[in-house]
Amino acid sequence: MFRPEIKVLDCTLRDGGLINDHCFDEGFVKAVFRATALAGIDYVELGYRASKKSFSPDKYGECKFCDEDFVRKVTDGVDNKPKISVMVDIGRIDEAQIPDKKDSVVDLVRVACYIKDVDKAIKLVNFFHDKGYETTCNIMAISTALIPDVEEGLAQLAESPVGTVYVVDSYGSMFSEQIHFLTKLYGKYMWPKKKEVGMHAHNNQQLGFANTIEAVRMGANYLDSTIYGIGRGAGNCPTELLLSFLKNPKFRLEPILEVIEKELVPLSKQIEWGYIIPYMITGILNQHPRAAIALRAGKDKDKFAQFYRDILI
Amino acid sequence: MFRPEIKVLDCTLRDGGLINDHCFDEGFVKAVFRATALAGIDYVELGYRASKKSFSPDKYGECKFCDEDFVRKVTDGVDNKPKISVMVDIGRIDEAQIPDKKDSVVDLVRVACYIKDVDKAIKLVNFFHDKGYETTCNIMAISTALIPDVEEGLAQLAESPVGTVYVVDSYGSMFSEQIHFLTKLYGKYMWPKKKEVGMHAHNNQQLGFANTIEAVRMGANYLDSTIYGIGRGAGNCPTELLLSFLKNPKFRLEPILEVIEKELVPLSKQIEWGYIIPYMITGILNQHPRAAIALRAGKDKDKFAQFYRDILI
Repeated sequence: MFRPEIKVLDCTLRDGGLINDHCFDEGFVKAVFRATALAGIDYVELGYRASKKSFSPDKYGECKFCDEDFVRKVTDGVDNKPKISVMVDIGRIDEAQIPDKKDSVVDLVRVACYIKDVDKAIKLVNFFHDKGYETTCNIMAISTALIPDVEEGLAQLAESPVGTVYVVDSYGSMFSEQIHFLTKLYGKYMWPKKKEVGMHAHNNQQLGFANTIEAVRMGANYLDSTIYGIGRGAGNCPTELLLSFLKNPKFRLEPILEVIEKELVPLSKQIEWGYIIPYMITGILNQHPRAAIALRAGKDKDKFAQFYRDILI
Repeated sequence: MFRPEIKVLDCTLRDGGLINDHCFDEGFVKAVFRATALAGIDYVELGYRASKKSFSPDKYGECKFCDEDFVRKVTDGVDNKPKISVMVDIGRIDEAQIPDKKDSVVDLVRVACYIKDVDKAIKLVNFFHDKGYETTCNIMAISTALIPDVEEGLAQLAESPVGTVYVVDSYGSMFSEQIHFLTKLYGKYMWPKKKEVGMHAHNNQQLGFANTIEAVRMGANYLDSTIYGIGRGAGNCPTELLLSFLKNPKFRLEPILEVIEKELVPLSKQIEWGYIIPYMITGILNQHPRAAIALRAGKDKDKFAQFYRDILI
């Protein structure tokens, strides 16, 4: 039987936007939002709410900033609207520009941080919570963190008003054993405080979907996915696989297949993501994909063996 | 620590050949064989040993027949040779053409069958065993078999001279729970007889690698994979991921990366395999990929939503 507490958060536009500086056509953004609404998805993350002092609007698309006007424009007139999420990075937001929830169409603000910055993340969580938003904390690159540091951070988060804390396999390096261990560890701190555990998986080793299932098995109730697995580098757990796995009758697969066919397949001919060997290599080595991104931008993009030799030095 | 009993069987040429009627260039076949030898892989399956009465050599390539002369030609002069495997299908072999093992460079013959044909498979297993070959039985489409039938077949196989019996997820429809269950069930019959359990996974739901790991966890010691995941439809568990997961120091990743870059990437521009939505759809519906193969050959190859509606009727 399905678990009604499970929420699917589609972050197609936010994580996918890391490939193209969030320069999506407005038609694409609207099509993705409409498809997720038709599919019965719980939350849609439209992008970041970054400060225009940190990032130039000349270079970055509107999903990088998610101004209220933009969010209203791309979500208006859609029935059965999913809740709307934006992500914020520490030190890259303009707090003066954040309205109270009552004046915003955004429901959820997700604070991304590394383990060393949990205190800063909690400060932001408090800020958004006080303004009336739901909040999560997404601790990135957890595969490179020391467990005592993780436990200290989780203990602090358990005392904060945060709603959900995410296991984030930023480098796509983890196997189900590690997901098993971390979901249980996060739960030990979160569940007694009536908070949820989330899972954000990357696909470098083709384990994004499998690791998300393992997190579900261990009690994670907030699940990130992206349509057709779009996302920086190897991409993410595909929304279409996740919906078909979850048995909740409210989910519908067909609108997702439709938007893949009409929007994602054409986009995949302009920008690349998925199982591409340099990202597989950074995944198995538990490294940030930046070296692979640099390789894929140059003329040696298919020199896999040399890349592997270089990165091992 | 690694489990020294684990054997990797690379079936790049056999399963990949299902995409192109086994019409590989001789250079490709040699490059794949050389790479697997350098990588320390245990078995390489070069193709089928089909009867030329069943399949015309005008249409099918040499890996469909794996004549002794051909096998010698493509494997000669390679150091640290993996053992050589061929697959046979029931009713499609010419028994008169099979030499004794002492006159053959083939080490292992794998008999593929559906559960209803286990008796025929055992007859073939006996035939090849009596000639001196190692044997396996690969029971296909196990996700559509009834468990009492499976148990009856396993009980018979346990009494045969077969060396290994494979769990084969032909449709790529199974989750780790099913793999867990089936590996244990196969082991219950095989292990007391000192036989091994094998795993052959397909990737329709991006679970080929994850399901192979689950089979390892449950005791499977014969693991199929293909380089860059090549194989009919969605393809298979990728050899490069499997070698990097297994900790046996005898395995080397670099030769596999090299052959991906030189041979598989160019080939992937001529024939297709991998995470392609119609194969994902047949996977989630536990169906043979034939409808998806037909779709991909026609002008409506990217009409995913319509395909899903049609196949559900």
